[in-house]
Amino acid sequence: MKQPEFEPSEEVLSGETTDIYFARTIDILRREGLNQVATMEVFTSRAGLLCGMEEVKALLARVLPEDNREVWALTEGEAMESKEVVLRITAPYQSYGLYETAIGGILAHGSGWATAARECVAAARGIPIISFGARHVHPSIAGAMDYSAIVGGCAGCSSIAGARLADIEPSGTMPHTLIIVMGDTVKATIAFDKYMPPEVPRISLVDTFKDEAEESLRVAQALGEKLDSVRLDTPGERGVVTAYLVKEVRAWLDLAGFNKVKIFVSGGLDPERITYFLENEAPVDGFGVGSYISGARPIDFTADLHEVEGKPVAKRGRIPGITANPRLKRVM
Amino acid sequence: MKQPEFEPSEEVLSGETTDIYFARTIDILRREGLNQVATMEVFTSRAGLLCGMEEVKALLARVLPEDNREVWALTEGEAMESKEVVLRITAPYQSYGLYETAIGGILAHGSGWATAARECVAAARGIPIISFGARHVHPSIAGAMDYSAIVGGCAGCSSIAGARLADIEPSGTMPHTLIIVMGDTVKATIAFDKYMPPEVPRISLVDTFKDEAEESLRVAQALGEKLDSVRLDTPGERGVVTAYLVKEVRAWLDLAGFNKVKIFVSGGLDPERITYFLENEAPVDGFGVGSYISGARPIDFTADLHEVEGKPVAKRGRIPGITANPRLKRVM
Amino acid sequence: MKQPEFEPSEEVLSGETTDIYFARTIDILRREGLNQVATMEVFTSRAGLLCGMEEVKALLARVLPEDNREVWALTEGEAMESKEVVLRITAPYQSYGLYETAIGGILAHGSGWATAARECVAAARGIPIISFGARHVHPSIAGAMDYSAIVGGCAGCSSIAGARLADIEPSGTMPHTLIIVMGDTVKATIAFDKYMPPEVPRISLVDTFKDEAEESLRVAQALGEKLDSVRLDTPGERGVVTAYLVKEVRAWLDLAGFNKVKIFVSGGLDPERITYFLENEAPVDGFGVGSYISGARPIDFTADLHEVEGKPVAKRGRIPGITANPRLKRVM
Amino acid sequence: MKQPEFEPSEEVLSGETTDIYFARTIDILRREGLNQVATMEVFTSRAGLLCGMEEVKALLARVLPEDNREVWALTEGEAMESKEVVLRITAPYQSYGLYETAIGGILAHGSGWATAARECVAAARGIPIISFGARHVHPSIAGAMDYSAIVGGCAGCSSIAGARLADIEPSGTMPHTLIIVMGDTVKATIAFDKYMPPEVPRISLVDTFKDEAEESLRVAQALGEKLDSVRLDTPGERGVVTAYLVKEVRAWLDLAGFNKVKIFVSGGLDPERITYFLENEAPVDGFGVGSYISGARPIDFTADLHEVEGKPVAKRGRIPGITANPRLKRVM
Amino acid sequence: MKQPEFEPSEEVLSGETTDIYFARTIDILRREGLNQVATMEVFTSRAGLLCGMEEVKALLARVLPEDNREVWALTEGEAMESKEVVLRITAPYQSYGLYETAIGGILAHGSGWATAARECVAAARGIPIISFGARHVHPSIAGAMDYSAIVGGCAGCSSIAGARLADIEPSGTMPHTLIIVMGDTVKATIAFDKYMPPEVPRISLVDTFKDEAEESLRVAQALGEKLDSVRLDTPGERGVVTAYLVKEVRAWLDLAGFNKVKIFVSGGLDPERITYFLENEAPVDGFGVGSYISGARPIDFTADLHEVEGKPVAKRGRIPGITANPRLKRVM
Amino acid sequence: MKQPEFEPSEEVLSGETTDIYFARTIDILRREGLNQVATMEVFTSRAGLLCGMEEVKALLARVLPEDNREVWALTEGEAMESKEVVLRITAPYQSYGLYETAIGGILAHGSGWATAARECVAAARGIPIISFGARHVHPSIAGAMDYSAIVGGCAGCSSIAGARLADIEPSGTMPHTLIIVMGDTVKATIAFDKYMPPEVPRISLVDTFKDEAEESLRVAQALGEKLDSVRLDTPGERGVVTAYLVKEVRAWLDLAGFNKVKIFVSGGLDPERITYFLENEAPVDGFGVGSYISGARPIDFTADLHEVEGKPVAKRGRIPGITANPRLKRVM
Repeated sequence: MKQPEFEPSEEVLSGETTDIYFARTIDILRREGLNQVATMEVFTSRAGLLCGMEEVKALLARVLPEDNREVWALTEGEAMESKEVVLRITAPYQSYGLYETAIGGILAHGSGWATAARECVAAARGIPIISFGARHVHPSIAGAMDYSAIVGGCAGCSSIAGARLADIEPSGTMPHTLIIVMGDTVKATIAFDKYMPPEVPRISLVDTFKDEAEESLRVAQALGEKLDSVRLDTPGERGVVTAYLVKEVRAWLDLAGFNKVKIFVSGGLDPERITYFLENEAPVDGFGVGSYISGARPIDFTADLHEVEGKPVAKRGRIPGITANPRLKRVM
Repeated sequence: MKQPEFEPSEEVLSGETTDIYFARTIDILRREGLNQVATMEVFTSRAGLLCGMEEVKALLARVLPEDNREVWALTEGEAMESKEVVLRITAPYQSYGLYETAIGGILAHGSGWATAARECVAAARGIPIISFGARHVHPSIAGAMDYSAIVGGCAGCSSIAGARLADIEPSGTMPHTLIIVMGDTVKATIAFDKYMPPEVPRISLVDTFKDEAEESLRVAQALGEKLDSVRLDTPGERGVVTAYLVKEVRAWLDLAGFNKVKIFVSGGLDPERITYFLENEAPVDGFGVGSYISGARPIDFTADLHEVEGKPVAKRGRIPGITANPRLKRVM
Repeated sequence: MKQPEFEPSEEVLSGETTDIYFARTIDILRREGLNQVATMEVFTSRAGLLCGMEEVKALLARVLPEDNREVWALTEGEAMESKEVVLRITAPYQSYGLYETAIGGILAHGSGWATAARECVAAARGIPIISFGARHVHPSIAGAMDYSAIVGGCAGCSSIAGARLADIEPSGTMPHTLIIVMGDTVKATIAFDKYMPPEVPRISLVDTFKDEAEESLRVAQALGEKLDSVRLDTPGERGVVTAYLVKEVRAWLDLAGFNKVKIFVSGGLDPERITYFLENEAPVDGFGVGSYISGARPIDFTADLHEVEGKPVAKRGRIPGITANPRLKRVM
Repeated sequence: MKQPEFEPSEEVLSGETTDIYFARTIDILRREGLNQVATMEVFTSRAGLLCGMEEVKALLARVLPEDNREVWALTEGEAMESKEVVLRITAPYQSYGLYETAIGGILAHGSGWATAARECVAAARGIPIISFGARHVHPSIAGAMDYSAIVGGCAGCSSIAGARLADIEPSGTMPHTLIIVMGDTVKATIAFDKYMPPEVPRISLVDTFKDEAEESLRVAQALGEKLDSVRLDTPGERGVVTAYLVKEVRAWLDLAGFNKVKIFVSGGLDPERITYFLENEAPVDGFGVGSYISGARPIDFTADLHEVEGKPVAKRGRIPGITANPRLKRVM
Repeated sequence: MKQPEFEPSEEVLSGETTDIYFARTIDILRREGLNQVATMEVFTSRAGLLCGMEEVKALLARVLPEDNREVWALTEGEAMESKEVVLRITAPYQSYGLYETAIGGILAHGSGWATAARECVAAARGIPIISFGARHVHPSIAGAMDYSAIVGGCAGCSSIAGARLADIEPSGTMPHTLIIVMGDTVKATIAFDKYMPPEVPRISLVDTFKDEAEESLRVAQALGEKLDSVRLDTPGERGVVTAYLVKEVRAWLDLAGFNKVKIFVSGGLDPERITYFLENEAPVDGFGVGSYISGARPIDFTADLHEVEGKPVAKRGRIPGITANPRLKRVM
Repeated sequence: MKQPEFEPSEEVLSGETTDIYFARTIDILRREGLNQVATMEVFTSRAGLLCGMEEVKALLARVLPEDNREVWALTEGEAMESKEVVLRITAPYQSYGLYETAIGGILAHGSGWATAARECVAAARGIPIISFGARHVHPSIAGAMDYSAIVGGCAGCSSIAGARLADIEPSGTMPHTLIIVMGDTVKATIAFDKYMPPEVPRISLVDTFKDEAEESLRVAQALGEKLDSVRLDTPGERGVVTAYLVKEVRAWLDLAGFNKVKIFVSGGLDPERITYFLENEAPVDGFGVGSYISGARPIDFTADLHEVEGKPVAKRGRIPGITANPRLKRVM
């Protein structure tokens, strides 16, 4: 993945998104004329995959004074242990105190998504995972979410914004609505094939109107060699996709000579369900994961001052002074 | 709460945040010249408090043709049952098909947050709750999150953006960093009092350096009548705030004549912890809740076409035709 | 139900099916010239529905001396409490000692089946249950099993032997094999309609080749008014029959005007699954239950002598003398 | 074990015990003139020990046309895996379609019993198990049950019918009733010894009237060298047989010089209880198992057509075509 | 119960049994000349029955200055709530500081035993309980333990020392050793009857050598009208006493005309086992409880100073000043 | 540990603390003139550490006839297995029958305490444990309890009586009461230092009034080199001592140059809590354990006669004759 380009928004820079008391703190300190060099450390509440650090660095690059700053951090996408310090900032406190809220929030959400994505990727043992969860998050973060999923190891994502951040092409098949509007799966698949540029793979969704096995054969016969995959997305009301259904569709496709058509599975997937398919030897060629990644619980981060003007300090419950962590690298 | 003003972002309107396949679907339908009037229904995957509908309506108002649309919806902040249809749109499909992703996402996140907030509010039986979780979400949604918390019944929120959306003043006390930078709780409290406008309540955070009971007496003696509250936020490393600590601080304050000083509690609160304080009769005057609300799992919503050109349709797993729901009101 | 006619088999009468030690006991007592009048009581190990008593009475009527016998029993189909005495025989011991094994076995199996059937009937709250489990028991007892299911409250059974014992018509729809051999569900349904006598209801099995909703419409359109029901039997590999599938099939049938066609559900049903359908308001018109009834664990019965020549006796662990049970009626 | 001789009953051959719909299917196919060569496969729902195949083969030998049949099967007593195909029949469908019910039932009950017996045998690590459960099953299958127990590894069985099928001598000791009728354990044991042929082992049941240790010494002193074993069958009301009781009886017998008298245990035994005796080093010489074997849940089997006239077919939920299983052997 | 007479031992008065740091504290305070009037409160860690207060009062009466003391307490045998203050002492601290260890220990053990006894008494719903646990505690506290059991509601106790404290006659039957030494239960029972004074009830222990039912009849026949009770104490190795055994012994005794002979049960009893007998309607006339009472976990008590020279004080974790408890009565 | 000196009390020797029925038994046997040599074995109900045997031996040495006795026993402090025989006495029964109660009780309590102490010692992996539980047991056994804790491996104990029995110096720090009476921790620590002999280590209790970290620094600064340790005993109302608090106090002490001051932890400790400190790498130098040891459930022991006049005997549930145990050593 290319270095992503993050640009702090005006809302963040102005402090609009911060907790009010940080704005008040900066105000008080300015009036008191206090602007000591202070060292803030940020640590994670639990183990996971770090994500969001690139966006945090883009923010810090904009606000810290270039001649009086020192920033140490773990790298985007690195594993982090429970309670590990992932970021250490030394600079005049007024320059960055306002952004404690934003820094914590960017890392929390990003690491939560990337960690969940990594769990799915690990469960899938090499079978590609596509992040499909944009529909379950507020659109303002759909891009950040899908970017984090890619950092976590997903092979693709469905949102245009996320794909742009991760510098890849967005992935997608066809929605049920296209088929319903066109009235027939075969008809919709043919229209898709007719208008889409050749580099877009032809993946037909086969559970809308008819039995999945029957419909798979119908679209395969209609598109022939051009068909890349069928997607199975059987809803819970119809028993969800089972490992056996995949085998059955595979058997009918093979029996009819369509050995090259791949099978893509989606619908309520999580590491446990992915493991179920693998343990039952279902011939799946790709998984689409939605809310397990997009709805992942953010990983809380905590920021604390550990030195002020070079002197060890700490609130109760923290150890005074710098916390040793040889894994941190100087990034600024 | 005044009617909030939501303005769809350019990114959303352009389809940038959508799943790619909806963009492709609209493209195909345009080329095929298909633009039937279609009815889409959106239902919730589980019971909760509906939130995000105002933002969705602002989006629909921008994209649906004024002369050929009919929108029915539940009201922002209403309770919804599991599987209940909360939104029904009838309009030419090309006008809104692109926004299925955004609509689902806005409702999912908003309802998730509002539902969690409501659980805390219910547990607190009248004691006010302030939403403190901005630091645990990506700053792009800090405002939407705090707005949802207010919809869910919170009495205040800490982010400036959220307070603006909800048309209230942001709430806040003081962070540990202010006290650490100033070196002493009493000193920090006096500075706070000196510079803050009179309408900002004086709430002192009393767990930074000294025993909470001792520090409470110190700040009360320093500020006298002006002190509004003390905030207890004892970290887990020091045993978190217990019901007994609240009683003890209350006893020492009362013994010294500070009966009017209120006690505000924060730190890892959730409905279970709030209930614990109430069941143990701790004299708490306010709770600050963070990641229980901000990290609430989004509530998945699903959108389906149920009629095309007035004819009942459905994909497998759905009932063809309009789903009756007398609670829906026509909003457009 | 008419009084069933049971005829003890030669194998049972000869003692062939007994535990060898009863044969030896009778042998020893004959040689010792001991043939006291003894009272044997039979009690159940757990609560349930008594079944098999008619068959036991038919056996006793053949072996007890008419002029020196007294038999008290509960009635076929009565509820019995845990540890309740259900049968008391007073007669010369040599006349019946050989049959302790057979008496216990008839009651154990019969009561096990009838009790399980009753649980299903109770769960179904008035919706008829058909016993379909003959394929899961040894054919020598298929009839006794289905007879017991009817005693337990089933509305019908599939085995010819069971229906004969219970004096009803056997019930059945069509097997998957008929459809597979004929190659198409509609074709098989038409053939069924063509050859079956008019009193046999036309019930079409609609999950063999195509989607159940689609196939239901096809057979309804082919048979019109003559179609009595469709049967849903979706296998586990395809997610079993869900409450939602029933609603969906109902909706499509109604939409097409086939409101009178009933829906019959089978496949892995037990009281819990039946309750699931009712609680989810699935419009089911009949249930077919298989191995929950046919594979029900037999209810163990125990036989003990409590008096010999009018004198209270007991082995250790039993109370000497007759056990009072006012519910017993004299039957012989 | 010698090859057992099974003879299909008239009731089975006539289709009396079948599900009615198979009878109707054959009727329809006859009238339609359809009698294709079809391949039916039978697979087990769970792992276990296969039993009943000999009886099934005896049935098929009677009904399949000698010149147009091919039957592959696992062997009686072989272990089978979950979902494994255990039987494959290729023949004109009309010849065997009527017997699907009987075939499934014979295998279900037989395999259920044999599998339970095997579990007891495995737990007993070489100590012989006798099947004692005839009293808990309908007499029509007492023989089949005990035969299956022997297939599962039991060293003996109590029913005369079962022993005949398995071609062994039936096993038995003496029932409580003999002792009660004769009034004393020693008296009953002496009478048993007096009349039984010498090859029947003298096993005295010692828990009827007196303490088991005391009674064991009494019968040992009465019969001397001729006593083979004592049987402990203490009822639950008296605390069941414990490992300690066995040790205690052993100690008293040894102290009195009866080291050769064996101890046989019965009463509510199952693999867990057998393991308890072994783990507590109780000196047991034989176990009698009743309802754990006789009341074992049948193992459901399912039959499906996989080819018709050489062409792969399948209902939904099944894979079309022959299922490979190299363990099957051609038997017909 | 008469007012018990407790006499503090020399070891306690001298401070020998105290924690060393209290001895040091008194030493330091003496040297510093500090002897303020201080108020100590003692509270219980959990709910239960208070016991030991009489012994504590006897100690305080010996050490507190008569003209400068005020003692408030709950009454021996009263129920106390979790965290309730049960004792409040106001006096010069040097007079009682040394005894904090002893006061806590007396109440802890006494209340633990009395509370456990009460649980048994509650479970027995009126059937008398005898405390039999002296053999499971150090002999130095056998008396205090049995005294506490009586305070908890037991009808009697086995230790002579405990009975003396509680001012009752000790209760007992006969041990297994007497029967073993004399070689026969009947012989031992006759000897017991021959030598014991008439007021000692004749209770025979009937599980030593023979079956309990048989032995009960033997001793009843030997002693006739003089037999008060039989005691069943079947060990775990023989399945413990079951409710059914009690019924069986009762039935045989009644059948033989010994309706007046009572049945006493012992062996591993606790409230759960006692409830089992009552729920199964076993005709028990008395229970003997051992280690459930004698091995009861002590209930921890905590002592804190709440006022010094009339000024509210407290360590962290305690509320300063006197704790209101209207249930306390002034006792000194 | 030196050989402890136990002296049987008059109360025990007189039979005052025994179960009344042993007194009666001896009375009967004397009148009958029966005084056979009998062998009694005592076995434990569960595995643990044997303690109390020295006290039992002191008792037996007083009562058994020197010329007609044989005593075999395990050694004080040895591990014992479940059901293991730990003591075997052969002597005229009248000489020791009266003491069965006392022997069982001494072993039960002693072994219960020693076993619990050993569990703590094992969990602490070399960090010393001090027994602090005297306040939770009746003062009559405070010494025996602490002696047993030392046998179990504790490095010290708080009671003077226990230390005397174990021939060590008692251990102690200072109680909260000293600090409360003196009004300040530093003042109390200075007074302690002023009056205590130099060999008593200066250990200051630092949780009474102020934050533990702050108070630790204050007492360290006040006493300088003379301070041996601080003790943390934070109550549950304040969150108990956490591993993190220990680290924090350690960090502040080290930062101020007090690396030699040790940290001692107490308050509700048990093996699980001790393990928690070690697993979280808290730098603890000593643990004080209270009620986990002092309130340990006694380990029940059972005594049975196995030979009378050289002839094997046993009650039901026991094996007649001597039980082999090569680990027993002859002690008398």
